[in-house]
Amino acid sequence: MRTTVGIIGAGPAGLLLARLLHNAGIDSVVLESRDRAYVERRQRAGILEQGTVDVLREAGAGERMDREGLRHDGIELRFDRRRHRVDFPALTGGRSVMVYAQTEVCKDLIALRIEEGGPLLFETEALAVEGADTDRPRVRFRREGVEDVLECDYVVGCDGFWGVARSAVPDGRTFERTYPFSWLGILADVAPSHDELVYARHDRGFALLSMRSPSVSRLYLQVPADTDADDWSDERIWDELERRFETDDDWTLRRGPVTQKSVTPMRSYVHEPMRHGRLFLAGDAAHIVPPTGAKGLNLAVGDVVTFARALAHRTATGSDDLLDAYSTTCLRRVWQAERFSYDMTTLLHTAPDATPFEDRLQLARLDRIASSRAAETDLAEAYTGFPIG
Amino acid sequence: MRTTVGIIGAGPAGLLLARLLHNAGIDSVVLESRDRAYVERRQRAGILEQGTVDVLREAGAGERMDREGLRHDGIELRFDRRRHRVDFPALTGGRSVMVYAQTEVCKDLIALRIEEGGPLLFETEALAVEGADTDRPRVRFRREGVEDVLECDYVVGCDGFWGVARSAVPDGRTFERTYPFSWLGILADVAPSHDELVYARHDRGFALLSMRSPSVSRLYLQVPADTDADDWSDERIWDELERRFETDDDWTLRRGPVTQKSVTPMRSYVHEPMRHGRLFLAGDAAHIVPPTGAKGLNLAVGDVVTFARALAHRTATGSDDLLDAYSTTCLRRVWQAERFSYDMTTLLHTAPDATPFEDRLQLARLDRIASSRAAETDLAEAYTGFPIG
Repeated sequence: MRTTVGIIGAGPAGLLLARLLHNAGIDSVVLESRDRAYVERRQRAGILEQGTVDVLREAGAGERMDREGLRHDGIELRFDRRRHRVDFPALTGGRSVMVYAQTEVCKDLIALRIEEGGPLLFETEALAVEGADTDRPRVRFRREGVEDVLECDYVVGCDGFWGVARSAVPDGRTFERTYPFSWLGILADVAPSHDELVYARHDRGFALLSMRSPSVSRLYLQVPADTDADDWSDERIWDELERRFETDDDWTLRRGPVTQKSVTPMRSYVHEPMRHGRLFLAGDAAHIVPPTGAKGLNLAVGDVVTFARALAHRTATGSDDLLDAYSTTCLRRVWQAERFSYDMTTLLHTAPDATPFEDRLQLARLDRIASSRAAETDLAEAYTGFPIG
Repeated sequence: MRTTVGIIGAGPAGLLLARLLHNAGIDSVVLESRDRAYVERRQRAGILEQGTVDVLREAGAGERMDREGLRHDGIELRFDRRRHRVDFPALTGGRSVMVYAQTEVCKDLIALRIEEGGPLLFETEALAVEGADTDRPRVRFRREGVEDVLECDYVVGCDGFWGVARSAVPDGRTFERTYPFSWLGILADVAPSHDELVYARHDRGFALLSMRSPSVSRLYLQVPADTDADDWSDERIWDELERRFETDDDWTLRRGPVTQKSVTPMRSYVHEPMRHGRLFLAGDAAHIVPPTGAKGLNLAVGDVVTFARALAHRTATGSDDLLDAYSTTCLRRVWQAERFSYDMTTLLHTAPDATPFEDRLQLARLDRIASSRAAETDLAEAYTGFPIG
């Protein structure tokens, strides 16, 4: 098999890249180890930055998002029983975010890819990337029990943290941090108790109120890193959420049937560089952020937009400049997102070994955000998204 | 002996408080354990916030400061061989800072106090504060070998971290952090190599270029916490400074005779509450910041201004409201300064156990300040000073 761009992984990064390349008249093949039903079911992020929304619209993949997504103009910070709203458009000159689940983005992009005629090969496992430093990199893969090779001009590894692409970048450096806590997340069939996301810092730990739709709530609790979701009955989860969202006014938390329950670990990870020869890493294949900043999906979008622009530039001008700058261009944005995700995480979570001094610093930081337009703007700019490229 | 306000300590906090009270027609007695020459020689901070400058002028103590002090409209951040200037007036609506050494502020205030007729008792050691929860608190002290008692309506402990006042506040909570590094500071008879302060983040450690006057440089190097200043020859210090201030342009460091050399430990400390009955703590008696944010002296000024206003309010209206709010009012500002001092310290110093991830975060933070007006404004507002009261 032969193509211009071999794309490993049909998550949002790989699927969006295939769409962007298609629109630029560049052919690609997408290899995905799982089946379509699995990919369309995976629950992941749900906050699209302004720039991600713009990219999806421009790519012709924003129709259902614009119909069903929920535009959010702010978030609420809750601490010390206080409530503080951060008004995104007022602070950033009109920017906002969209609540629209990653799984829905994937469904839309898969439908578009199939409509364009593919190729999008499910249940096709990439085994290795070879010849990344030659003009003809190859992806070895297995499909229906048979090994085969995809010959490419470029390979983009969108195969996530556990994928094979990263291992084909030699002499890389990794930067890592793990956190001593996880998120216990639930989906519940109940209207969200607030119309925007609520980020709560509480002495008992962090809690997040989010939503999937006007009738489905998504809620999270900080729990110790080794927590088993089965140890948490629905009642215990609701009771704990109620405590952590406490306020001085009469706000109440609506309860409803829990339809899904799972524990997400928290990790920060960056692999440098994000490119070796004609192999490019994008999204979770190169970097992981803790979910507190809602940056994971949005970073992946930035990476593939940067690659698609660079390749289109080469096609138009013959110049490799933008492709050569890919890693540096992406990493600058990646590190801003890593910084923001780390800061949001440490701002709101209770570290098991936190000193009283550190507790007070958290409250002073929240107080600063709530009382300084500059500090609040810094947060709003980061939350609605760093520029791509 | 009898007075309205007994002030323990003739550092900048105690001396300024005596001046403010005098101007408000309230009598006070200042007790200081050291002699005048010692107090006038103590090398400490040198950066006055805009608000501190305003307070000294209003108190009639700004004449020599305005003549000899150096107004600074910005600082330079140096990292990755890059130079970034933070322009205070442009970011804060006209605010700036003044370079004028604490020791000069003390000289000016001592001269004024003596001119007003005192009382300012040097070589008078406060031994204990008694009866803080009564209407007649007392300071027991020793002068020329004889113990005596100062009877007061109020006592203000401006006697620093090692003073006796804090121990008379029962049931307090302390918040603390020590840092695994110190500052090796020098005074040198050479014109400053830059006309504003330079804060340098370098893989070898932090360095700070500051000045006392147009012909005297003040320079600092981050060193391990247990460093002996005698292990550092002048040449070794200059060589190390030169390395850490390195840039991509042709900036050079001027060398000159070193006239003083000392090691300063780094500590964050807060005591809550800052008041018990009629005893009030001000300045280092209640809180310590690492020097990176240049906040120590300025916090002390905020405390005594808050006390003087509260007492004048009581004298005018009979209401204890502002005195009762003293601790809460001061602590809000104190915690903002603690946060800022901690952030500036961790932004610029190399922690001995820093991971590669944390190194990259530092650079991402500096990159953010250099590229986001909101982040830069947040820093400029904090550096030029949080509002008093």
